[in-house]
Amino acid sequence: MPVNLTVTDPSQLHAVPGVRIGVAMAGVRKANRRDLVLFALEAGSTVAGVFTSNRFCAAPVQLCREHLAGPEGQHIRALLVNTGNANAGTGADGLARARRSCVSLAALMGVKPEQVLPFSTGVIMETLPVERIEAGLPAALAALNASGWADAATGIMTTDTLPKAVSRQVMIGGHQVTITGISKGAGMIRPNMATMLGFIATDAVFAPATAQSLVQALVRDAADQSFNRITIDGDTSTNDSLMLVATHQAGHAPITSLDSADGKALRDAVVAVAQQLAQAIVRDGEGATKFITVQVQGGRDEAECKLAAYAITHSPLVKTAFFASDPNLGRILAAVGYAGITDLDQGLIDLYLDDVHVVTQGGRHTAYREEDGQRVMKQSEITVRVDLHRGPAQTTVWTCDLSHDYVSINADYRS
Amino acid sequence: MPVNLTVTDPSQLHAVPGVRIGVAMAGVRKANRRDLVLFALEAGSTVAGVFTSNRFCAAPVQLCREHLAGPEGQHIRALLVNTGNANAGTGADGLARARRSCVSLAALMGVKPEQVLPFSTGVIMETLPVERIEAGLPAALAALNASGWADAATGIMTTDTLPKAVSRQVMIGGHQVTITGISKGAGMIRPNMATMLGFIATDAVFAPATAQSLVQALVRDAADQSFNRITIDGDTSTNDSLMLVATHQAGHAPITSLDSADGKALRDAVVAVAQQLAQAIVRDGEGATKFITVQVQGGRDEAECKLAAYAITHSPLVKTAFFASDPNLGRILAAVGYAGITDLDQGLIDLYLDDVHVVTQGGRHTAYREEDGQRVMKQSEITVRVDLHRGPAQTTVWTCDLSHDYVSINADYRS
Repeated sequence: MPVNLTVTDPSQLHAVPGVRIGVAMAGVRKANRRDLVLFALEAGSTVAGVFTSNRFCAAPVQLCREHLAGPEGQHIRALLVNTGNANAGTGADGLARARRSCVSLAALMGVKPEQVLPFSTGVIMETLPVERIEAGLPAALAALNASGWADAATGIMTTDTLPKAVSRQVMIGGHQVTITGISKGAGMIRPNMATMLGFIATDAVFAPATAQSLVQALVRDAADQSFNRITIDGDTSTNDSLMLVATHQAGHAPITSLDSADGKALRDAVVAVAQQLAQAIVRDGEGATKFITVQVQGGRDEAECKLAAYAITHSPLVKTAFFASDPNLGRILAAVGYAGITDLDQGLIDLYLDDVHVVTQGGRHTAYREEDGQRVMKQSEITVRVDLHRGPAQTTVWTCDLSHDYVSINADYRS
Repeated sequence: MPVNLTVTDPSQLHAVPGVRIGVAMAGVRKANRRDLVLFALEAGSTVAGVFTSNRFCAAPVQLCREHLAGPEGQHIRALLVNTGNANAGTGADGLARARRSCVSLAALMGVKPEQVLPFSTGVIMETLPVERIEAGLPAALAALNASGWADAATGIMTTDTLPKAVSRQVMIGGHQVTITGISKGAGMIRPNMATMLGFIATDAVFAPATAQSLVQALVRDAADQSFNRITIDGDTSTNDSLMLVATHQAGHAPITSLDSADGKALRDAVVAVAQQLAQAIVRDGEGATKFITVQVQGGRDEAECKLAAYAITHSPLVKTAFFASDPNLGRILAAVGYAGITDLDQGLIDLYLDDVHVVTQGGRHTAYREEDGQRVMKQSEITVRVDLHRGPAQTTVWTCDLSHDYVSINADYRS
């Protein structure tokens, strides 16, 4: 039951000139479901990405890094995504199978295998049925069209209950620039570089000499402000990947710096798209019934704010209290206390639930009434604000609650 | 539904000469339940403890530290425990109320308030009804007797479903020495110093000059090998306390070193009692249906073994897979991958489930069959062994699975 998440009308998902999308049914794990998504990019496009920090990264992630760092890294022509199998924990055999999918697609497209980036999501530690993916490629190629974003958003879903797609247009140098993106991922979500899978494309124009570095900086910045601030269960996936494609077709004067007026306008739009996609993942978090924003302020640096924010958002006790709409708010204090800020003074802490001042100087506020906490806890969107009162830094993390359905979904995922 | 945990027959719980126990109903939170436990210690006893590392530590923990460090720290005469209210997140008022309980008990016992150590467990951030505790003290004092350990184990329970008590006797210098202990705690369990509450007493004799330092070293060692190796939900409580009392009444020649033959014999027995008490907490973990031992070996140091072990034991995905008896073992690899061992080589990893070799060199072992994994996953006791193959260090952590009942218990705890 996603929290205040609706499916974007396909007519609102603007095509990005230079990007065509084909979706097919390859039967990777189950028959009769769209499980293969192909992005074909015009020659001259720039692609950059951020990937999981998990040391047990999947074979496709290893191959993406290799291809992007190699001689064809600035000439990527295709992104190939399958669901149903993560091709992670599969050793050298998994790497060979991911490579074979690139070779087969490249042959059909008339490009080099190193110009293809592979992505996989699904069950870990099972052999990738690459022959099924190969068999599905002709259908995906035949389906290529510029308006396939809605189908792609559906095609990359696993335990997601709704597809996630966002589109936005901004004016840059008198030209309309489009940013459209999709994401998936409802469990194993504590991205540390990106969500399980996110793809954003724009036709914004960058100067060729600096295009790669600027697009890379932009995707890193966007990830840090969006996918790196969400958590569902604290599990950092083996397959997290966020990709940003720039096709340079919008017609405006090339952007040469992200700090210029045009660069900032684009960055704001890309970050907004990324944040909306990231928040959509939380809203559709496995078993989620509440969308929770945790703001920690008054830290000495952002790192310690993050320690506190993630301690709160990873605590099963805090998350079950939200599920129960129970203002058992001492659990939040306890989480802040064990977050790892070694010289924290509990006597300085303030805690607010939306507009309700719950804790002051580390103890219950005399004006706090249980019914006020109860009123906020019953809402579907809640903001927790903690003030550490020891410095100027702050951070924000988005999460959901922990419900019976989370257990059911993850106990039943493979059956 | 505790996992292979049975109630110790009260006749098997040996009294510890020098320790008397009184249990009463004070109505701290609910009427008609034993919620007040008093340990009265003979003059000359030595008391040492380890406490939570949570910076938001409860008022009684602050007071215990203060009293143990003060001039009466080597002359403690009473431990007073209440359930139903943790007196944490209660600021200066909470500290004053904890202090008042010590003053009142001391007056009744004819000792100094600083010779009393207070302990509380229950809901956080609610005002301690100290007047109810005071009203219950005469009944607790009247009930004092040497054989109250079974009642005490029941009296300190909160969401525990069974009382936890262990007793053991060893011969030291031709004299029989008793070690008896109790523990509680079924949620908010990732002790970092101790469990929520554990009390162990022995009549072993230490030389007066070094008694305090030896008992302190012994309780620290016992905690590190027991309560600091268990986790249920990763939440480090505000109230964790493990206390060790030595009454010096067993009659053997005083122990002057924990490395002597007598010292080692005692240490082994105390550690065994502490491990059994700590494991009992996991077996009775909120909603637990499985008892899981996670061994990580082949690390460069114990710290990185712990990173991997706690990543596995805190992963909701791993824990729900155990609940489902689903050998979805890639989730374990993923947890090892994001544990924070930054230069981990996934190509070296071995994973075993009991005797089943699941993963070799980071990929699925060719001989591994799903039905073998399934067979082990259905057991009520399972050992996960991960070999990092990068050094000589190892560690062990005990945990349980994550079930529907965990969510129910914590969503309903206050209602």
